[in-house]
Amino acid sequence: MLHFNFHNSTKIFFGEGQIAAIANNIPQDAKVLVTYGGGSIKQNGVYDQVCAALANHSWTEFAGIEPNPQYDTLMKAVEQVKAQGITYILAVGGGSVVDGTKFIAAAAHYEGGDPWDILAARGKVKSAVPMSCVLTLPATGSESNIGAVISRGTTKLDFLSPHVRPLFAVLDPKVTLTLSERQVANGVVDAFVHVMEQYLTYPVNAKVQDRFSEGLLLNLIEEGPKALATPGDLEVRANIMWSATMALNGLIGVGVPQDWTTHMIGHELTGHYGIDHARTLSIVLPAVMKVQREQKRAKLLQYAARVWDLHEGDEDAMIDLAIAKTEAFFSQMGVPVRLSEVDLDQAAAEVIVDSLVAHGMTTLGEQRDITPEVSRQILQTAL
Amino acid sequence: MLHFNFHNSTKIFFGEGQIAAIANNIPQDAKVLVTYGGGSIKQNGVYDQVCAALANHSWTEFAGIEPNPQYDTLMKAVEQVKAQGITYILAVGGGSVVDGTKFIAAAAHYEGGDPWDILAARGKVKSAVPMSCVLTLPATGSESNIGAVISRGTTKLDFLSPHVRPLFAVLDPKVTLTLSERQVANGVVDAFVHVMEQYLTYPVNAKVQDRFSEGLLLNLIEEGPKALATPGDLEVRANIMWSATMALNGLIGVGVPQDWTTHMIGHELTGHYGIDHARTLSIVLPAVMKVQREQKRAKLLQYAARVWDLHEGDEDAMIDLAIAKTEAFFSQMGVPVRLSEVDLDQAAAEVIVDSLVAHGMTTLGEQRDITPEVSRQILQTAL
Repeated sequence: MLHFNFHNSTKIFFGEGQIAAIANNIPQDAKVLVTYGGGSIKQNGVYDQVCAALANHSWTEFAGIEPNPQYDTLMKAVEQVKAQGITYILAVGGGSVVDGTKFIAAAAHYEGGDPWDILAARGKVKSAVPMSCVLTLPATGSESNIGAVISRGTTKLDFLSPHVRPLFAVLDPKVTLTLSERQVANGVVDAFVHVMEQYLTYPVNAKVQDRFSEGLLLNLIEEGPKALATPGDLEVRANIMWSATMALNGLIGVGVPQDWTTHMIGHELTGHYGIDHARTLSIVLPAVMKVQREQKRAKLLQYAARVWDLHEGDEDAMIDLAIAKTEAFFSQMGVPVRLSEVDLDQAAAEVIVDSLVAHGMTTLGEQRDITPEVSRQILQTAL
Repeated sequence: MLHFNFHNSTKIFFGEGQIAAIANNIPQDAKVLVTYGGGSIKQNGVYDQVCAALANHSWTEFAGIEPNPQYDTLMKAVEQVKAQGITYILAVGGGSVVDGTKFIAAAAHYEGGDPWDILAARGKVKSAVPMSCVLTLPATGSESNIGAVISRGTTKLDFLSPHVRPLFAVLDPKVTLTLSERQVANGVVDAFVHVMEQYLTYPVNAKVQDRFSEGLLLNLIEEGPKALATPGDLEVRANIMWSATMALNGLIGVGVPQDWTTHMIGHELTGHYGIDHARTLSIVLPAVMKVQREQKRAKLLQYAARVWDLHEGDEDAMIDLAIAKTEAFFSQMGVPVRLSEVDLDQAAAEVIVDSLVAHGMTTLGEQRDITPEVSRQILQTAL
């Protein structure tokens, strides 16, 4: 196990009816901005619950944060924060709303010049408007971590800052019952790949992290298909929701090497072709497993044994089968595992490689050995 | 899964050399009290590392916190805190030093009358001196939780307060290399039983908590014997240390029923007969598993399957074997599994039952169905 520091201070309020907890967890004298997306929260009762909980607070709202939240949209919210003297932001939505709100919170306090630099030039975030969230779509883990991914045109970039970690996160699995099948499937796959990016590297004898990662993978494999088959099962949703949070709250990633190649290539696919984030991951991950097979051999075998219960036979056959089972799980969730399934071909692969180079993504992977040439191989393998 | 709130704000500094981190994580203007136990930290280099890290701080010390920290000892430290205007306490030691320091921190600010009431009358802790710790013995989980167990004569009582959660905890597995075999074994067994008290109840379909618990149990079963066989293996110590922290930092216990019968009976055995805490647990837990077999049946079968890989045959035979394997693991760690091994008999069992009644422990267990009569049965089963 490698040395590490770990600190996750987000308070979690988990369970049905917990939206009411926001009443006592936002300072009474705060000037609150409630941020949300396209308005689904007005159909499913979440908006009403938030209004009820904020009855004794002073608050306004900013609507319209889109999936893959756009810089230009968010900057309008930043203007509102400044104009209205907002002192607290409550994000109500999925990962995009939470990520977008993290950027709003940081940009409103940013004194380093153009807030775009936070993303494009690693401009240091020294403070942010305090923020919390009510999560409506389990997937990204953004509800209790320090990261956010923001888009501007075809460019999709991330930033990290402890100042944007939500102070609290409300996780009410009941609010996820109104999600579409596609949203549920995407969320499960996103969480699954978050675990894999922190797990499928090389062994450092980090037994807690490995066991926890394997446990989350097993849960998502068990519960994901159930969420599609029996969409009204609240217990299934609860297990998916808590698994997704644990998948990217920092805990399983401490003291271990991490990869994130799948995400970096995936971001380019979303940026250029508008493919849902999770669906880029389900296409890229199996190809990364195949191309990086030797570098990841030991962990691939551990994954085969502990997640897919493959213990006997030729090692390479077990690895092949574990990859095939991963693809089958994705297919069962209704997400694509090849570029051809989203109508992309070799020409797209070249666009993505060029874009990775343009964004400085030239040494990806836990060993920094995924050059643009290896990324090309991965994309070709994913055709 | 049940509803829950979760918040663990302790910063973790994990790895060799991390004691130096305390220099920048205690306020420069603090008046620091360093608390420790019998002085082993002066032999193993920990004290010197702490001194070096505190070179630019104003600090004094309080030594002599004993195993099963005694109220009278701790009240002397409380006097020192008040007399010297201490504003920050750094505990350096194992669970007893950390627990004792939590009580010191709470008692120094207590305004409800006699500080003993914090333990004996559930007196509310409204604030405490800020505290952190350098952990030298992985076992209790006290380094990042809100609980503490304090002794006064034959009485051993606990209290819980978020005000005594360590602000940071340094976990350097290297400092555990000088522990005695008995200390290492006790620590592993203590952590193991912490997991069991939160896991072995009845199923509530809490898949993250179950998988994490099973992972920690598997780690402790794998690494515990290695720590005894190859006491110089730092990686083994690192995995034990992080497992023990995760075993009782609140995470695996959210949203699930909990038992703690083994601990409550164990505390009485320590209070009356001075048996090491972990050795009371290894005696009582197997008996609890046997006596509460029907109430815990579903989880016993899950434990048999996932922790001991028992999947076939008669259900009762699998449960019997899982309990036998648990006892064998304890025996392999060199701790007793019967009262007779620590020279106690039926008469002692009666003393313990009377003491449980005197301390109000008359409805133990996750179903509150462990009456004094059932406790007697458990103790008789443990003879």
